[in-house]
Amino acid sequence: MLIELPFMLPERTSKPRENGITMVMDKGLSVREAEDMIHTAGHLVDFVKLGFGTSLFTNNLKEKIKFYHDNHLNVYVGGTLFEAFVIRNKFDDYRKFIKSLNLTTVEVSDGSMEMHHDQKCEYIRTLASENTVISEVGSKDADINIAPDAWAAMMQKELQSGSFKVIAEARESGTVGIYDPKGNADVALIHKILEKVPVEQIIWEAPLKSQQVWFIKHFGTNINLGNIAPNEVIALETLRTGLRGDTFHQFLP
Amino acid sequence: MLIELPFMLPERTSKPRENGITMVMDKGLSVREAEDMIHTAGHLVDFVKLGFGTSLFTNNLKEKIKFYHDNHLNVYVGGTLFEAFVIRNKFDDYRKFIKSLNLTTVEVSDGSMEMHHDQKCEYIRTLASENTVISEVGSKDADINIAPDAWAAMMQKELQSGSFKVIAEARESGTVGIYDPKGNADVALIHKILEKVPVEQIIWEAPLKSQQVWFIKHFGTNINLGNIAPNEVIALETLRTGLRGDTFHQFLP
Amino acid sequence: MLIELPFMLPERTSKPRENGITMVMDKGLSVREAEDMIHTAGHLVDFVKLGFGTSLFTNNLKEKIKFYHDNHLNVYVGGTLFEAFVIRNKFDDYRKFIKSLNLTTVEVSDGSMEMHHDQKCEYIRTLASENTVISEVGSKDADINIAPDAWAAMMQKELQSGSFKVIAEARESGTVGIYDPKGNADVALIHKILEKVPVEQIIWEAPLKSQQVWFIKHFGTNINLGNIAPNEVIALETLRTGLRGDTFHQFLP
Repeated sequence: MLIELPFMLPERTSKPRENGITMVMDKGLSVREAEDMIHTAGHLVDFVKLGFGTSLFTNNLKEKIKFYHDNHLNVYVGGTLFEAFVIRNKFDDYRKFIKSLNLTTVEVSDGSMEMHHDQKCEYIRTLASENTVISEVGSKDADINIAPDAWAAMMQKELQSGSFKVIAEARESGTVGIYDPKGNADVALIHKILEKVPVEQIIWEAPLKSQQVWFIKHFGTNINLGNIAPNEVIALETLRTGLRGDTFHQFLP
Repeated sequence: MLIELPFMLPERTSKPRENGITMVMDKGLSVREAEDMIHTAGHLVDFVKLGFGTSLFTNNLKEKIKFYHDNHLNVYVGGTLFEAFVIRNKFDDYRKFIKSLNLTTVEVSDGSMEMHHDQKCEYIRTLASENTVISEVGSKDADINIAPDAWAAMMQKELQSGSFKVIAEARESGTVGIYDPKGNADVALIHKILEKVPVEQIIWEAPLKSQQVWFIKHFGTNINLGNIAPNEVIALETLRTGLRGDTFHQFLP
Repeated sequence: MLIELPFMLPERTSKPRENGITMVMDKGLSVREAEDMIHTAGHLVDFVKLGFGTSLFTNNLKEKIKFYHDNHLNVYVGGTLFEAFVIRNKFDDYRKFIKSLNLTTVEVSDGSMEMHHDQKCEYIRTLASENTVISEVGSKDADINIAPDAWAAMMQKELQSGSFKVIAEARESGTVGIYDPKGNADVALIHKILEKVPVEQIIWEAPLKSQQVWFIKHFGTNINLGNIAPNEVIALETLRTGLRGDTFHQFLP
């Protein structure tokens, strides 16, 4: 809170934190646009994901990464890029690629390709020896359904293999994985996951406002949320604190 | 018009004005982004609303407000913030809060809470003694329907209490208040309101292009429109002047 | 590709090019926002369209045009502005207007007005003597259906009259012309067009990601696409190269 208020808002965790995390998707911001976001709302952001393969086409990428690092943000490239290397049997090159960008956080996913889960955990173990690993569960293909039990079990195994957090897939569109094609939360799946995995170990992709509202209403102010658009970071914070219509009554004394 | 044309466009009012108003919703722009909007399109903007509670989480807020003021824009914080103070019995603190930000325009609303209408008018009277008051009618809750007659009567009373303009609620999504859940205008409601309230005293929230088109087609170039996204200000001006397909035939000689 | 990769991506053409074109719609960017886009992704952009009549309301327009030109981008104002002059019998003034802005690319369209096709081709011939002409086929009115044969024949005639490329209409919304109201491609129309017109002579308006994916899946990496939002240029490039989930399997060795 930048302004002293004469009443209490729900208590937000402060950075660095285990829950209350906001992860932003940057899909090609200029350095100046990154500055705009961080100078204005950087105190609210924990992770920046350079979405899918966009980092490869962004001029001044190293300068942008340095800017994020200088401002104490964790930056990583989208898991699709990890998969693009792995499917071509270039995992070692991927590690070099990550190092060449001075990144220390890395995402492991299998949203676009089939990967034996033991193999995925092996990648996590290897990368976790030098990096902070975020791993993602869920397919980007709306036709692939993973049973709730299997979903929860994979998350558990990935955390045991060294993942710092596991991400529940939704894409930028918010219409697959933990949501139906209309973007509504798959309540049964989410509850099954939470029977097995502590909530603070999960980042829920929630690009749509309705999804952010749903998670905040059900799991409170400090639920970890991801795939937030850069210009929605501050608006999300008002949802987390009851200062927007949708959650106004949620946090009254 | 920045460029001399060899034909007439529909005549736009110029600032400061009573009708033809464009109100923009800023939900957390950086100072530089505010400069981008205003240096490019500031001649088209009358009011800037710092949406709902976003002002509380925006770094460099006072600098941004000063920039808007220096450029002769009216700035105010969203009515949800007014309500967040009032529901906690902190109205006097709200007045201090507004002053501490050097704001002289203020919004009074009851979109997220129940408020006796006499009480709302009392707030308007009190604030109007020192500020330009904009008051909003309509609930943010899609399940709450206000009868057209009641809607018109409240607007009348609020104007009599000192509101400079009354706003017809639609939210950022454009799916409540004067619109149905699909964003279509509630024609009967709008006409009933206009039987009682002069059109230039109303600002219609119209975030969606289809809504802007509807109002311009029915009520002309200089209808007052609000909740315009910063990057849609210039596009809206082309709708107002028949320089976009949707209103191209509206303003031919 | 800014970064050396240890594997091959589908080969992209490089600028200046006949196919693989990306055309961006700028509907009122500030000079600084234009710089942000071009400094970050300018190597990926061929054409910038100043959408419909927005150029008339944009401060610092000449400075922005100069910036684009200095960075070797083709800039032109939207066809609706051409039509706004023509419908008022001001074609000669339009030519002066284009020159006064130092533009050398021009769009000829009839999406918002009726125009005899011979007359349209005459405009193309006249303008092509001094400018690069892009001409557009298709109505902005969803109720006007042009038969596939007629569509293809018009494109052929416009190219013969001097158009550098022909554009297939879709609007900013992506819901008319070559798409149905839900944004799905009109497959029969598109195939009929391609029986008669070489694919590299067409720029397909494809503002929605699903449309970009459809064209890339059917016609490959270097299909010409237009009406791309400024902040989607880099994301589009990942689709063209199989580095986003949607086309991940399209370009594997």
